[in-house]
Amino acid sequence: MSSDTLNFQKMILRLLEYWQAQGCLVWQPYNVQVGAGTMNPATILRVLGPEPWNVVYVEPSIRADDGRFGENPNRMQQHYQLQVILKPDPGNPIELYLGSLEAIGIDPRQHDIRFVEDNWQSPALGAWGLGWEVWLDGQEITQYTYFQQAGGVDLDPVSVEITYGLDRIALALQGKNSVWEMDYGAGVKYGDALLQAEIEHCQYYFNVADVDALKMIYDTYEREALRCLEAGLVAPAHDYNLKCSQLFNVLDTRGAVGVTERAQYFGRMRRIANKVSLAYLEQRQRLEYPFAGNPVWKAASDEQRATSEEHFELITHHSSLITPEDGDTFVLEIGSEELPHGDLTSALEQLRAAVPALLDAARLSYERVEIDGTPRRLAVIVHGLAARGADVESVVKGPPADRAFDASGKPTPAAAGFAKSRGLSVDDLSVVEEGGKRYVSAVVRETGWPSLDVLAERLPDLIAGIRFEKSMRWNGTNVSYSRPLRWLVALHGPAVVPFEYAGVRSGRVTCGLRPYGSPAYEIRHAADYRTAIDNATIVLHTDARRKAIAAGAHELARSVGGAIPDDPALLDEVTNLVERPTPLLGSFEERFLALPPMVLVAVMRKHQRYFPVYKGDKLLPWFIAVRNGDEEHLDIVRDGNEHVIRARFADAAFFYEKDIRQSPAAFVPELGKLTFQTELGSFLDKTRRLEQLVPAVAGMLGLDETARATAARATALAKADLATNMVVEMTSLQGKMGGHYALRGGESPEVAAAIAGQYEAVSESAAGMALAVADRLDSLAGLFAAGLGPKGSNDPFALRRAALHLIENLTANRQHFDLRAGLDAAGALLPVAWSEKTRDEVLAFIGGRLEVVLRDAGYSASVVKALMAEQTHDPYAATRAAAALTEATQAPDWETLLNAYARCVRITRPLKERYALRPDDLRLPEEQAVAAALAEAEAAKDGTVETFVASLRALEPAITRLFDAVLIMDEDAAMRENRLALLQRVAGLARGVADLSVLEGF
Amino acid sequence: MSSDTLNFQKMILRLLEYWQAQGCLVWQPYNVQVGAGTMNPATILRVLGPEPWNVVYVEPSIRADDGRFGENPNRMQQHYQLQVILKPDPGNPIELYLGSLEAIGIDPRQHDIRFVEDNWQSPALGAWGLGWEVWLDGQEITQYTYFQQAGGVDLDPVSVEITYGLDRIALALQGKNSVWEMDYGAGVKYGDALLQAEIEHCQYYFNVADVDALKMIYDTYEREALRCLEAGLVAPAHDYNLKCSQLFNVLDTRGAVGVTERAQYFGRMRRIANKVSLAYLEQRQRLEYPFAGNPVWKAASDEQRATSEEHFELITHHSSLITPEDGDTFVLEIGSEELPHGDLTSALEQLRAAVPALLDAARLSYERVEIDGTPRRLAVIVHGLAARGADVESVVKGPPADRAFDASGKPTPAAAGFAKSRGLSVDDLSVVEEGGKRYVSAVVRETGWPSLDVLAERLPDLIAGIRFEKSMRWNGTNVSYSRPLRWLVALHGPAVVPFEYAGVRSGRVTCGLRPYGSPAYEIRHAADYRTAIDNATIVLHTDARRKAIAAGAHELARSVGGAIPDDPALLDEVTNLVERPTPLLGSFEERFLALPPMVLVAVMRKHQRYFPVYKGDKLLPWFIAVRNGDEEHLDIVRDGNEHVIRARFADAAFFYEKDIRQSPAAFVPELGKLTFQTELGSFLDKTRRLEQLVPAVAGMLGLDETARATAARATALAKADLATNMVVEMTSLQGKMGGHYALRGGESPEVAAAIAGQYEAVSESAAGMALAVADRLDSLAGLFAAGLGPKGSNDPFALRRAALHLIENLTANRQHFDLRAGLDAAGALLPVAWSEKTRDEVLAFIGGRLEVVLRDAGYSASVVKALMAEQTHDPYAATRAAAALTEATQAPDWETLLNAYARCVRITRPLKERYALRPDDLRLPEEQAVAAALAEAEAAKDGTVETFVASLRALEPAITRLFDAVLIMDEDAAMRENRLALLQRVAGLARGVADLSVLEGF
Repeated sequence: MSSDTLNFQKMILRLLEYWQAQGCLVWQPYNVQVGAGTMNPATILRVLGPEPWNVVYVEPSIRADDGRFGENPNRMQQHYQLQVILKPDPGNPIELYLGSLEAIGIDPRQHDIRFVEDNWQSPALGAWGLGWEVWLDGQEITQYTYFQQAGGVDLDPVSVEITYGLDRIALALQGKNSVWEMDYGAGVKYGDALLQAEIEHCQYYFNVADVDALKMIYDTYEREALRCLEAGLVAPAHDYNLKCSQLFNVLDTRGAVGVTERAQYFGRMRRIANKVSLAYLEQRQRLEYPFAGNPVWKAASDEQRATSEEHFELITHHSSLITPEDGDTFVLEIGSEELPHGDLTSALEQLRAAVPALLDAARLSYERVEIDGTPRRLAVIVHGLAARGADVESVVKGPPADRAFDASGKPTPAAAGFAKSRGLSVDDLSVVEEGGKRYVSAVVRETGWPSLDVLAERLPDLIAGIRFEKSMRWNGTNVSYSRPLRWLVALHGPAVVPFEYAGVRSGRVTCGLRPYGSPAYEIRHAADYRTAIDNATIVLHTDARRKAIAAGAHELARSVGGAIPDDPALLDEVTNLVERPTPLLGSFEERFLALPPMVLVAVMRKHQRYFPVYKGDKLLPWFIAVRNGDEEHLDIVRDGNEHVIRARFADAAFFYEKDIRQSPAAFVPELGKLTFQTELGSFLDKTRRLEQLVPAVAGMLGLDETARATAARATALAKADLATNMVVEMTSLQGKMGGHYALRGGESPEVAAAIAGQYEAVSESAAGMALAVADRLDSLAGLFAAGLGPKGSNDPFALRRAALHLIENLTANRQHFDLRAGLDAAGALLPVAWSEKTRDEVLAFIGGRLEVVLRDAGYSASVVKALMAEQTHDPYAATRAAAALTEATQAPDWETLLNAYARCVRITRPLKERYALRPDDLRLPEEQAVAAALAEAEAAKDGTVETFVASLRALEPAITRLFDAVLIMDEDAAMRENRLALLQRVAGLARGVADLSVLEGF
Repeated sequence: MSSDTLNFQKMILRLLEYWQAQGCLVWQPYNVQVGAGTMNPATILRVLGPEPWNVVYVEPSIRADDGRFGENPNRMQQHYQLQVILKPDPGNPIELYLGSLEAIGIDPRQHDIRFVEDNWQSPALGAWGLGWEVWLDGQEITQYTYFQQAGGVDLDPVSVEITYGLDRIALALQGKNSVWEMDYGAGVKYGDALLQAEIEHCQYYFNVADVDALKMIYDTYEREALRCLEAGLVAPAHDYNLKCSQLFNVLDTRGAVGVTERAQYFGRMRRIANKVSLAYLEQRQRLEYPFAGNPVWKAASDEQRATSEEHFELITHHSSLITPEDGDTFVLEIGSEELPHGDLTSALEQLRAAVPALLDAARLSYERVEIDGTPRRLAVIVHGLAARGADVESVVKGPPADRAFDASGKPTPAAAGFAKSRGLSVDDLSVVEEGGKRYVSAVVRETGWPSLDVLAERLPDLIAGIRFEKSMRWNGTNVSYSRPLRWLVALHGPAVVPFEYAGVRSGRVTCGLRPYGSPAYEIRHAADYRTAIDNATIVLHTDARRKAIAAGAHELARSVGGAIPDDPALLDEVTNLVERPTPLLGSFEERFLALPPMVLVAVMRKHQRYFPVYKGDKLLPWFIAVRNGDEEHLDIVRDGNEHVIRARFADAAFFYEKDIRQSPAAFVPELGKLTFQTELGSFLDKTRRLEQLVPAVAGMLGLDETARATAARATALAKADLATNMVVEMTSLQGKMGGHYALRGGESPEVAAAIAGQYEAVSESAAGMALAVADRLDSLAGLFAAGLGPKGSNDPFALRRAALHLIENLTANRQHFDLRAGLDAAGALLPVAWSEKTRDEVLAFIGGRLEVVLRDAGYSASVVKALMAEQTHDPYAATRAAAALTEATQAPDWETLLNAYARCVRITRPLKERYALRPDDLRLPEEQAVAAALAEAEAAKDGTVETFVASLRALEPAITRLFDAVLIMDEDAAMRENRLALLQRVAGLARGVADLSVLEGF
């Protein structure tokens, strides 16, 4: 820590001063415990409605479940936020934000400041927004959000919300290993001021809080909030909702809230948030929007508007004197704040289709279109673009010739009118013959438009046509885009294509790298665009960035004797997070290698987007991060990233060490506190059910004794890891951690593997399959029985996935299984009523998934439909049948076979009665031949399509002969009924196999 | 508001910067609603224990019952505090504080900054301290406290607590008429940011909050706090106690807490505060006091110590070369922070006795002692003081002469030893004769000490000997004084009398006026002290200040055609609040004169220490305030004071107007919500009881019909004003406001007067007396019956005063009244059990008060005691009896009378049996004379002492003769018993009058 480094309190004062100089009101932390500064009414209420609002304040934020008893270097149940709201968007909020970092001594040139997609939402507040986590050398230091909705109300205007994690910023600034070591100010260590209370609060939240009492208080406070709302009291109602929220957090941390209950609590808080918001909006209207006339904020926005107007006038004035040459390069650069990884990829794809289509429609000829981009820019370069659209001639048909010209061949008024309507003279008309009739016709010539005009008209539509996974509004135009669009370069040759989109006017100025302060580069001619981008040291091409990262990373890994496994998903993401990639090698303490590699890798890949470094199968204590920027001060960036990973690993180690103090079995009783679903009980209840269901399922799956024993043991421990700290923290590791802990706890590798694999789609062992299948059966049966089957797109318990896993697991393992029996076995164990009706509902639901699976596998709709009725209960059989039936339908004799079978079906289908076959009464050889083949077919019948088709193939000649030679509907009733009985038996051969009547040609 | 005036937020930032530059930690507001920054753990916990702690933070403070629905210019349920804690006292905290005011633009030269005694205590926190309200131009802007105890724990070291009322300071700075008009910052008006929420919170606290629900939550949170404590969790326990405190405040504002309940709630919170404090102390010890080694705070205190050492060395070095001349003036100035009015008066009185005694004991002769002082200094000036104590000779007796000298007259070792022990030679011894025995003796000469030495030794004791009503500790010496002692001038002639007291070393530098920055004045010679004080423009003499104020005030009042009634108490107080008085005339809006004068006068006198200005009986819209300082910028001071009184009157008007919207009777049902005492019910219940009791008491008091009707009507409305806003706010107006509202509501003047006078000691009408007596009887009977009679010095219901009022009222109105009957009548109406035992307890309690009253009236202990047994039940009778008995005992024949009576008593007292008198069997004329006089006496007996003494006077000769002439104890039993029966009847004459046996001479 250098002598001019700010201590914690000076840093805060500096930030408050900075934002107050930017016209922000300096507000105070709220006097109700909140999880974030967002909940302070100065944010969550003031962002509502049309009034401007600019505010800054500190908020000590309480997140009970982030508590680590003070044992983590930067995770605590209380951290300090600095909250800034800018409403409306001032146009340059990121620049203002970066300016604030400079004000406290963070020079962007010396660090790696990154904007990593973060879509924020608060189910309790009914609020969401899009934005980023801002990373400083790998450390998340700020949440930056364009607030789209609050309290369930759309925001107009949108607010910019900047939430600084003050402790982490100070940690980075002071270069300490732990927040507790930081200088708070006045000679006091942060830890001396805060650590003891931190430990105590954790103790309270995790171990002491009285669950029943707090639930009761929650209910009471909720009632009080509603009473306030009835009395029209917005602020007190909001306070009570905040108190409810804090109580919920404590209950949650205490492990007292199940999945459904959680959703219910969120719903309750959201409902109140919505009422509060609506009441607030109404109130502001009644008060006639006191902030609307704020002189400071008005002056600032007027100034901003004036500057922008002036700027645009300059450019358009400039441009009106300049026009492109034919064949000049065209460039469009859509500059924005950092796009999310997926949006960048998708936008480029869309442009690759849309740009040629646009040019074609405008009849602008061109040589080549080049499209690429970085997180901050989508670039369209069109080489050799025409300065004007091509002219076209078209023949237009007019009135019939005999009406256009009179008998003397003189044009009638009809001809004159037609000619005039096309801008021609009557002399330009000619006569054409079409379908034996004669018409007048004219050749019409359409002149192409100048490129500037047509592009000016169409480029806004081009941009508007780009679709994003999620898009957002940010300014008064209420245009949506992935992230705020900040500049537009649109040049054809030397000329600006003048247009405006989302309040931004096109021009010739592009923007450099953030670490260099986003300098402006003026582009005189579109052909200079690449040079400008190169000068800005931006790597525009995605592929070039990808290659540079891969090469650099490999090189660095090699330098420490390691390697980087292929990881295209991660590589793609990192590529889209930077404009100028510089990979760097960081290290972490060897001691962390004692943690399970899956934990380390999950932290590195998922949280940090680092490439882990391996030597063979073994992790090395190194990682590769990728900086957005050059090599300068790379040591500072490395140092920062190493601090971050240390804290993250320390967090993981904290959990891990807590977990391994107990045997896995010791966590099982804890499952009693984790609600699976209110009516279905806890995860302990689920475990108890599975302990009965797994043996039954194992029987159905035909497991041997050893496998059954393995399955039984795995079942007993299967859900234990849900109660471990590691899985509570990193849900994605569920199952896998359980397997790890089981092995560590002395279980056999087979048991551990069964536990580890339980959430995978496909099990790798018979024991594992028994557990996985039983688990899905229990969930499906139970939740349907509780009336919680998926509705519409709402599938909170992921039952679609459960059904898919069942299907995939059974089919991949080539395992027959009767889902009906399985579901009934599961249903019988439930604490809620189970009925055949429910069973059929679940089966139909699984059938629906199966249909999708089979269609996705390429089977025709009719084949799939033919099987669905008969095979749904056994997915593996259905899959096999689909293949076989498809093969059969593609055989050359299929038409014959199907026809023969269809004749049997068609003639017997209207019969109400089922006749008994009397084989001895069949006298004709044609009858006897069918009967003989039928007998063989019935003997062979095994439910498979193959057997059925083989039988049919054997039967077909006899059937055909029978129909050719014999009148089935004989006058003699006994004879007729015996023949019909024969055909009924033939028709019945497909029962349980397929419904061939839905196939084409039946 | 001038252009360089700070807006609210800049003012706050400036203060935070200021204190952080003084080495304070910059802390954050607490995330639990608190009534004051004191409750933030950064104060209430950190002040505990030995560690240093210096902190500053803003605290939005919630005081529900200060809510005025936004209708008051500066009273709100939420105000912003800035809290500073300096631990330990840095030695110059007031100077630091004044520096902070200068930092935000408050120049002490342009204002009147006053330190007005304020003894802060929080019954809920178990905390107290001494200090001041700081007034800025009459406005309280800061509470400044030396924290003595917190959580029931004595603080060592003491902390300095400075609590700024930020809103009021800003109001004064910005010169606005209302906080709502202030500039908050960023162009936002304070009211636009806060007013709506203010109104809503008031609405909630006063009208909406669900009392039962909140009581239930209180109980739950209290349990949770206790559970936290059991688990050793200090911070969470404290949080819950704060939440309880806030809940209590809401309940209280909602009017849902009675007097006893309030005390119980305070007790509950205090118990938890105590447990929290003890747990915190233990914890800090276990953590080994992390702040103890704070480098910043250590450096500051080292520097302070070094400066002070250096300074003292300079002075002592200087002094050692200088000595006083005989007859030089001596001066002692004890300089301190502002003494409370009463302490100043009392200290001067004590010094006037102690100084001469000290000088006499030191045998220092002097011409004249002059003692006077101001709030900041006690000055002792001794004219013509000797430079050395007088020598004295004394004769000391040694061993007997025959042991001191042998037969040959030669001194023995005994003589030698004696001489040596007195520092003499044997030759100096002589022989004296005493009581016929001869001893050796010596004349011992004691030389007087130099004045500097003897004074240096004795002055500390002089200061330590001053006793204050309440005294406090402030620094490491833990010496107590009224307020921190900051400097000592002690000069004899040119020489410093060197000593140290309470960590302060004596010197020659005195301190000027605060408005001038307390400049230092060096005094070369004690004789120059007065000149120095005069140069400092300080008016040292209390009387001179008093006269200046009185003259100035009268002059100013005359200037607006008014006058100031004599008000010696207020004049004395104001005199003791200033060192240099400058009266000023301020005005207020005429419209406020519509308020009852008692309200205006109470506000002016009690809250503001202003002199109200009258014209005849009528108040004028003027007031006289007294500034501490000169005439400069007096307009600013006047302006500030006028703002203050406007806000205060607006507050009163707010209440008054709310109150008069209803008839007084309409408040009666509201009394149902005001608990009198849990078991005794509400004040409505009390009213209902009084409605029955008053007629009964009126009967006992012999009221006529008209008076009875008046009393009944007054009783119905008597307590109504307790539910009015005005009385809730200004309790001292209870009764009087009720009378006012009653008259306004159309009641007769007699009824109004009875209501108005009900709390006075002495009623002015019979109806009033019936109400007042009944009220006291109900309270005494009820609270004793509920087991709540005073214990020790604890008298929460002021029952001592109730008893005294009963006694004074009855005696002043010369009204006989049998308290036994009255109490029984009251007891019969109670909702709790009433018994003779309780009645006797109450009677004994009243008797105790009566005894004190009579003793205070000058009656001898024996007279009072003689009456107590017989007359307690009728205080007026007792009073009269005391006078009569005293008169009788002073009559010349009293000894004779008493002796005669005593003989009758003494001879009959041992008898167990009571004999029947057979008058006809009395044969002797001596017997018959007694019997005749007895018959007359018994016929005259009326219970008064006068009659009894007259009877005794008539009986005495007969009694004396009887005893002289007749042997009472005759051998004949019948004769003996008849004589004893006669004497028993004589002895019985005093029954119900007095117990003469306790008188001297019996």
